[in-house]
This record gives sequence, structure tokens and C-alpha cells, in this order.
Amino acid sequence: MMPPITFSHQWRRCDFCVCLSDHPQRYVFISQKAYQDSETHPDSSIYTLMKGTAVHGDDILDSVEYASPSEGGDVISTLLRRDITYDQKQGTCAEYYKVENANCSKDADCVPGEVDFNGHGRRTGKCIQYYNHTFKTCEIQSWCPIEEYAVVREPALVEAINFTVFIRNYIHFPKFKVLRGNIEDSLGKRRKRKYLNKCQYNEETDPYCPNFRLGYIASQARESFSELCRTGGVIGVFINWDCNLDLNPSYCKPTYSFRRLDVRKDEDNSGYYYRFAKYYSKNGVESRTLIKAYGIRLDIIVHGQAGKFSPIPTIISSVTAMTSVGICTIICDWIMLTFIDKNEVYSDRKFDEVIQEPADLIPTDLVHTELSYIGSFGSNHSDLSDGVPL
Amino acid sequence: MMPPITFSHQWRRCDFCVCLSDHPQRYVFISQKAYQDSETHPDSSIYTLMKGTAVHGDDILDSVEYASPSEGGDVISTLLRRDITYDQKQGTCAEYYKVENANCSKDADCVPGEVDFNGHGRRTGKCIQYYNHTFKTCEIQSWCPIEEYAVVREPALVEAINFTVFIRNYIHFPKFKVLRGNIEDSLGKRRKRKYLNKCQYNEETDPYCPNFRLGYIASQARESFSELCRTGGVIGVFINWDCNLDLNPSYCKPTYSFRRLDVRKDEDNSGYYYRFAKYYSKNGVESRTLIKAYGIRLDIIVHGQAGKFSPIPTIISSVTAMTSVGICTIICDWIMLTFIDKNEVYSDRKFDEVIQEPADLIPTDLVHTELSYIGSFGSNHSDLSDGVPL
Amino acid sequence: MMPPITFSHQWRRCDFCVCLSDHPQRYVFISQKAYQDSETHPDSSIYTLMKGTAVHGDDILDSVEYASPSEGGDVISTLLRRDITYDQKQGTCAEYYKVENANCSKDADCVPGEVDFNGHGRRTGKCIQYYNHTFKTCEIQSWCPIEEYAVVREPALVEAINFTVFIRNYIHFPKFKVLRGNIEDSLGKRRKRKYLNKCQYNEETDPYCPNFRLGYIASQARESFSELCRTGGVIGVFINWDCNLDLNPSYCKPTYSFRRLDVRKDEDNSGYYYRFAKYYSKNGVESRTLIKAYGIRLDIIVHGQAGKFSPIPTIISSVTAMTSVGICTIICDWIMLTFIDKNEVYSDRKFDEVIQEPADLIPTDLVHTELSYIGSFGSNHSDLSDGVPL
Repeated sequence: MMPPITFSHQWRRCDFCVCLSDHPQRYVFISQKAYQDSETHPDSSIYTLMKGTAVHGDDILDSVEYASPSEGGDVISTLLRRDITYDQKQGTCAEYYKVENANCSKDADCVPGEVDFNGHGRRTGKCIQYYNHTFKTCEIQSWCPIEEYAVVREPALVEAINFTVFIRNYIHFPKFKVLRGNIEDSLGKRRKRKYLNKCQYNEETDPYCPNFRLGYIASQARESFSELCRTGGVIGVFINWDCNLDLNPSYCKPTYSFRRLDVRKDEDNSGYYYRFAKYYSKNGVESRTLIKAYGIRLDIIVHGQAGKFSPIPTIISSVTAMTSVGICTIICDWIMLTFIDKNEVYSDRKFDEVIQEPADLIPTDLVHTELSYIGSFGSNHSDLSDGVPL
Repeated sequence: MMPPITFSHQWRRCDFCVCLSDHPQRYVFISQKAYQDSETHPDSSIYTLMKGTAVHGDDILDSVEYASPSEGGDVISTLLRRDITYDQKQGTCAEYYKVENANCSKDADCVPGEVDFNGHGRRTGKCIQYYNHTFKTCEIQSWCPIEEYAVVREPALVEAINFTVFIRNYIHFPKFKVLRGNIEDSLGKRRKRKYLNKCQYNEETDPYCPNFRLGYIASQARESFSELCRTGGVIGVFINWDCNLDLNPSYCKPTYSFRRLDVRKDEDNSGYYYRFAKYYSKNGVESRTLIKAYGIRLDIIVHGQAGKFSPIPTIISSVTAMTSVGICTIICDWIMLTFIDKNEVYSDRKFDEVIQEPADLIPTDLVHTELSYIGSFGSNHSDLSDGVPL
Repeated sequence: MMPPITFSHQWRRCDFCVCLSDHPQRYVFISQKAYQDSETHPDSSIYTLMKGTAVHGDDILDSVEYASPSEGGDVISTLLRRDITYDQKQGTCAEYYKVENANCSKDADCVPGEVDFNGHGRRTGKCIQYYNHTFKTCEIQSWCPIEEYAVVREPALVEAINFTVFIRNYIHFPKFKVLRGNIEDSLGKRRKRKYLNKCQYNEETDPYCPNFRLGYIASQARESFSELCRTGGVIGVFINWDCNLDLNPSYCKPTYSFRRLDVRKDEDNSGYYYRFAKYYSKNGVESRTLIKAYGIRLDIIVHGQAGKFSPIPTIISSVTAMTSVGICTIICDWIMLTFIDKNEVYSDRKFDEVIQEPADLIPTDLVHTELSYIGSFGSNHSDLSDGVPL
């Protein structure tokens, strides 16, 4: 008759409710799996390191060239393709012909001092030849020559599919004083070093290896690597810690998931690129190599929760009141229904059966025992960080 | 007689409480607007790109020069004014005269090897002329000449008021599987590209354009741009997502607000500047140009919450118990009052009226219907990210 | 008889429950310290600036050289020791002998075009002399010479123990409109400037000084500074704001704690280093100085919570119902027990005593007074940010 109902996680669940038959004035509420405490948003520390070498024509790119920023934080990007403009200098040259009002036939077409928002610099007022073409555009003061004209588009670093990123993550749940890291520590020291040097993360075969192949990350995020090389993209690496601290904390291990964070279907606005420059001094004149870098940016995002559930029956409360068994039944019904929520299906137990449990199963002194247990909460799991100051 | 009372959001609200008059043992609690579920702290991904050109004397500064870091994350700074020290080299020169004990008249006044914490280097033990002045200070081993003496203070980049920052933000509520972006997608593809190239965010006229003019940001944060050029400053760009998922998710759009994050009234400690250097090799000798950059740092901060509210009356629970109508009334009163909180004023309904609602309005089989509805929770809103792997 | 029980923070606590003896149908629930509202995860803004000078042989390192990134965000690292490889150029040279299959005796041992994942470049197919040694390894196309051969290991910057980091942190609780900063503002302006220039944070003597000596940070994190110079490390600087907004907000001051975030006992995987390069152009040929930097990375992590508690007794609710004193007692008992949680020990009060409190202490019109108090919630604390737009 009673439909399946569910219990709230935000309250201690009351699974039993017993009227002590010899003490009609005393009723006892019992929880079989009292939800004790939980914590989300652990403190998290990320360290990242890219590894791998790419060959580009006669050039070799190592991680110093393709990874940035260099400090190894929770956001790290790898260059996949470069549009390079060599040897720009401050000077005057022809504006890009697609910039508004840049085309001209005589100086009077160019307003001196004008700066177009989508242009590259300030117009000098001259109309000049567009580099080695036959048409003319307004001359500008700028970093010359302009990128659009002088850019050299390099092919993609296809080897980047085999680059790996080492991700070290430590989390700390302050409430539970639990510290965990994502690096396998069950192996011996020498075997571990060897393993960590060679291994590559795989959900099935190497779930605790912290080296992630870019190709694996892309495929897990269901992205084509060659497409990423073309447009760039931002991929989230989600590290998820879901720790049941009733178990030995060594069971608390992370799982990983991967998802593209810039929406691919919105072609014009997806992708990831950034520009930077290398500066040189040539005969006292500053010059720069401008690099427009398409790449993968990895955003390492950590989610965590830890909770303690006690599997031991716990007396939530006991009440002494001048009441009859009838009232007791009402209140027992009532407590069961107040703790209703939709998170967990409660269907196996009916109150009626429970109420028929022999009262002598719950001796009065159990109250004290169980409540002392609650009092010692927090001390039944030792800190994992032996020797590590927390 | 009953003062206005309010209901908690952390519990399903009980608006009705009905005693089935033909079944005095059965009472039913009904919620008219049951609070179902909510989520805060969505996953968020930010990409930023600065745009604009500034003229500084004979030099043109493009975003490669004035924006940093280059990788386009959730913190991006724009240089507004530079104090430049050209051509520093490792060597020996006179210490800044304001450094403690730097003034001297003879070598014996200078302790060789001493490093003053607020100074620029290690004292050699000589007392030398302070550059082209007539007084003397202790000689130090340092990057020479020192910044305080050789610095060239440039005027502010007033054009920076027209720089724009493109901010792309995607958020994801994992519990609801809802993915949203801040870029207008109701236009056709070509119109959209054109719009996004030209538009500038304005709360009134262009609330869904992701290009933010620095001048607009400053004025929204009630800051004077010329004052920011002088001292620098940190401004928070808050993107707020407040999503009622009972509506079509396309209604879930961000709002923006802007607030200075370093407190202006505390003059000595507000402001924002940083130093960096460009390195050169001149005839095999390393030299650098030291730049003290005052600027605006934008911290993009995302807040989000999503919730589902069901407007359909829902039976929270029904209880069968050996009880009389009198007890039923007490418990009905009681449930109304237990769900009290201060968030929402409950004043329109009195229990007494409610209890007089005809019992036949709530047929017993509704219990099953509504509870199945709860069971299918989470499936009545489809994922927005068609074609996008989540 | 009743064991100590505890009260939930997620609900308003009910300390009293009074049956009005002259109105047996009316019972009143009273909270003496109703938990009103709280907020966690404040908006936070961090600005960091390193200070100090280190002498390294004939070179002076200032913060531009040793701190990165330069923009002063919530993650800042300081170089403590450098492994420098000078003057690398793109070219061909001998592969590192420890790379797999790099040792050779004849050209046929070297597969042209092969790129070893742990190697430095692409093999040319030649077997050549390993620099100035007598054995041979395969020639590779790479940045030459390789780091392992040409590296110069510098001694640690022992002076770094006296470097300081200035940390400016402003937080904002949007719900309470409370803005707080970590910089002492009780001093006069001139004294303050002088104090802030000289002071160094110390929990006992200078708890509100925002300059943190690296040596102090390391010792508080129970780390040996010389060990950190050897391996590098990541240290969390935790800024904790715990604000009771019933008090004047000027009492809301941060406390700091320090903890190493990479686990020291896991030697192979702890530590902190990163590589970067300085690029030069020499006679038109690009060369670089490669730096492997061991250092301390500081992750500034802000925790905050604010809450308002009203110390004034508040009537949570009053109920009028057709009931007898006996039922009233049951419900009073019941409400006390429903609000049970383990966070706070409730032992000083017994219901029995409370119930004996004279009913005339709670006049009926108190209901209105107290509820109007609740209605004005949120306005009894003024915004701290006078003159600062929020």
C-alpha cells in the first residue's frame, strides 16, 4: 500500500522506530546507516609537466618551445601548429587590404593619424604599393611587415599526438584530515620509478598512471586530433575523487574524464590560439618573431567529495513521554516520513515489521554506548599523511 | 492571528495538508511548488583575447606587447603605462641614494659584501659618484644602471580605453547535464560572425555580445580610466548564471557585473603593476630592458546556479495511521510549521481553508502518479549540447 | 537520564518549548540563538609581489629574474637553484648515452628518422663521438649541445630564505555585502606605509603584516629550506576568513597557515621544477639559454565563511491547536529531538525545567516583535566598503 519512498542525505536516516513494550512511555529511533558527515571542495594542488619531442622541418621542438606557461600549473597549453611572422620591426608599411578603407589610389584617400580598430597601426597619410602586389593600400606605422602578408603557415606538429602530460594532483579534506595523491604508491620504490617513467594512463589497463597521452585525451573527449591541430581547442581533464571514508582511505582513488570545453559546433568561436613573440636585438634595433599558436589547452579541474557512513545501527534519539502505544506508532510513522527525500529508494522495510522487533534487542544501556560512539566521531580514521605535516 | 511565515528552500515545501474525511486514518501532504533540486558551482571554462592597437610615440603596441599572460586564461592583464629602463647589464654602479646607508663620503662608509634588503645588489666597498650628480653613494654589483636613476616614464596608453577583451565562457552543470555558453547563437551563421566582429557589450543594447571595451568595464566599476592609467588596478568581471531549468534552457543567459577588486581608498596598497624584462645578447653580453608595467588586471569570476522547480502539485507523502481527525489536524499544522524558514513569505493561505478542500480532489491513485513523476526526475529536460560529447 | 545531545547547524535550533498554561491550545517554540544565515566561498582577489636580491657569483638576481609568472596572481614561484645550458642552437650532435639504443659503434646501429620518446631529437643515421668522451652515440638533430652534457649546475640561492612575498587579498561576501582586506588599516597613513615597508608576518608579533619571508613560510610548513633548494616544492599559503558578522566586521581578520602540497615522502614525484629559455639572435642564428629552475611555488588558497547569529531569543513558531497539555509535551519533546545533530553539545538544559518557565514571560505580542526582527534581517550590518562600489 505504501509506495516506495526515498530518504534525504541531508538528515540522518531513521530506518527503525521501536516502542519498548515494557516501557510504553519510551520509544527509540534507530538508524541502520546513519549518514554522518561529508565534505566537498577539497584543497587541491596540481603540477603539470609536458614531455615529448616534435620534428618540424630542420627544427626540433622540445617542451620548452611548445608548452606554456612554463610553471606547470592547472592550465597548460601545447602548441600544435604555428603561423610565424619572422623579423618584424617597428616601421612603416602597407596596411592589410581587407581592413576597412585601407585600399587607396592616392595619398588623399588616407587620413594621417587615423587608427582603425581592426587594423594594425596608425596611418601616415601616404598611399603605397601593397608589398609585391600591384594594388595600393594606405601606409601605416606598425610592426612591419604585417602578419597577414608575411606569415608562414607551418604544417601541424603531428607528433604531438604522442606528447604526454604528467599530472600530479594532491587533495586534502581538512575536515577529515585526509590527504590523497593520484600517483600509484603500492609498488616498491624502484619498480615505481620505472613504471612511472614508461606508463601511459589508460582507464582499463593503467588507471593509476599519471602520464596522459594527448592523443588519448583527445579520443576520450571524442575529438579528432587532426581537427584539433587545425583549430585548436580547450579540453577539460576532470579528476574526480569520491571517497567513502568508512573504507580504508587507500581505496580512495581518483577517476578521470575528459571533455572539450569550447563548443565545437560553434565553429567561429570555438578553437584555441594565442599570439606571442620572441624579441631580438639586431644591430641595436629591436625585432621580433611573431607566433600565432594554435594548440590544445588543458584545464585540469578537480572535483572531490568525502563522506563517512556508519554501518552500525545507531540510536538517533530516545524519548520518554507520557504516551500510549498508539501515539508512539503515530510518531514512528511520522519520523519515517519526515525524513523523506527522493535520493534513495526505501522499499525493503515496512514499519509494521520493524515495530514488531522484540524490544529486548535494544537494551537501554545501548543508548549510552552508541552515543559515545558518536562522541568519538572523527577519530576512527587516521590521517594518511604519515610524516607529512598537514 | 497567524503572522506571515516563510518556507525553507532546503526542504520540499508543504503547501497543503488534507485529511481525507472518508478515511480519517489517512492524511495527505501536498506541495504546490515542490523545490526539487539545485546545483551551484558549475564547471566553467574561460578564454580571453585582447584586441586593439595603441600608438606610443613612434612605436605601435599590439596585443602581443600589452596583454599578458598570452595564453588567454581567466586572468588577463593589459599594460596601460610603462616605466622603462633600457639596456641594463650585470656590472657595478652607484646604489640608489634613498637606500639605507647608501650615502657615503669615503670607501670606509661602504661595507663590502653587504646586501641591503631594499637595495639593488651587493656593495663592493667603494664609494663612488652617483651617476651625473655631485654626491656619492656606495658602489654595488647589480643590473646597471639602476631603475630609479635610468628609468624613462612613458605617458599612458590613452587609446587603451578602446581596447576590447573578448571573453568566451562555457559552463556545465554536471547534475543536470546542461551546457551553456555566453555567445549569442540565435543569429544565422554569417550575421553572427559579422555581429561578433563589430559588437561591443552593453547591458542595455548588446547584452549577449562577448566583447568588452576596457572603458566600459572601468565605468561600470565606477572607476576613472585616467586614474587607472596612473596607478593600475584589478577589476573583477563577474559572469552570473542563474538558470531556472523549468524553462527552456535557452532562457539561461548570463548577466555581467564589474567591480574593482583592489580597494581604491587604501592608496598605498591598491593599484596593480608588475615588472618584466626583455633580454638581448649584445656582442655576447646579456642585456635587458626592464619594464615596470602599470595596468588593468581583469579577473573573470563565474558564479552559477541552476534549479528545477515543479509547478505541478505533488503529494509529498501520505500516511495511514490509527488516528482521529483531531490528531490529523495537529500533524497538519505541525508539518506546515516545521518547514518554516525565512526565505519566502507564506501569507496567502490559511490552513483552515485548505483543510476544507474537498477530499475527492485527491484520489488515492494520484499518489502513484505523482510518485512516478518524481521517479522520472532528471529526464524532463534534454541535454542542450546536441552533438557535443559531455 | 537524557544523554547529551547536539543540535544541527542547518536548522534553526529550538532551545525552549513552552506550553502556555492558560491557553492549552497554544504552544510556542523559542530559539535562544537562532542560526540565521551563512555564506561560504567568498569572491577573492589575490595580488602577489616578490622582493629581495640574491647574489650568484658575479651575477645579481632580482625578482624579475627569479619570480614567475610576473603578473602577480595567486600562484607565484621563486627560483631557488638553476641548471643552465648556455648557447644551444638547432643543429646535430650526439644523443644522451642513457637514452635507449643511443649507444652505437657504427652508423648502421642508428636508424635515421627515428625519434625516441625519452630522447632529445631525430636520429640522422650517423654514429658519432659523444662530445669529448671516447665512446659513441647516435647523432641527432636537436637543440645542441644537449642539456645532460652541457649543463652547468649552479649552487642554490641561499639568500632566497630572506626573500619576501607581499600578498594582498580582498574578499567579498556578496550575500552580506561585506568586503574585507588582509592589510592592517588601524594605523595612520604614514605609520602604515612605514610599517608595511619594514614588517614581516609573524603569527605572534605581526599577525596583520602581509609580507611573508620565504624562510618563515618553509618553517611553518615544517620544511627544511636547504632541502627545498635541492628538490623544489609546492607550498600552500592558506588564508582563512571566519567572520562572525554579529560582531563589528572589523573583527573579521584572516589567519594564515602553511602546508607543503607535494608530498615529500614520495621522493621521486615530489619537488618542483620547470624549464624555460631565453632566446637570442647571434649573427642571424637563433640561440637559447635553457634554464631548469628548481624552486618554491606558492599556491595562495583562500577559505572563507561568514555567518550571522542572533543572540536574542526568537520565536520560531507558535501553534494553536485543539490539543491537551499531554500532546503539547509530546510535541515539545519531539521538536527538541528532531533538531538533533552532532555538532554542538546540548546538555545544560533539560526540557522539564524549561517547561516550568512561567508562561507569562512570553507575551503573545512578542511573536510580532520578533518576526519583524527577522523581517529586517540583513540590514543590521552596514557595508564595509564605504566609498567603494560593490
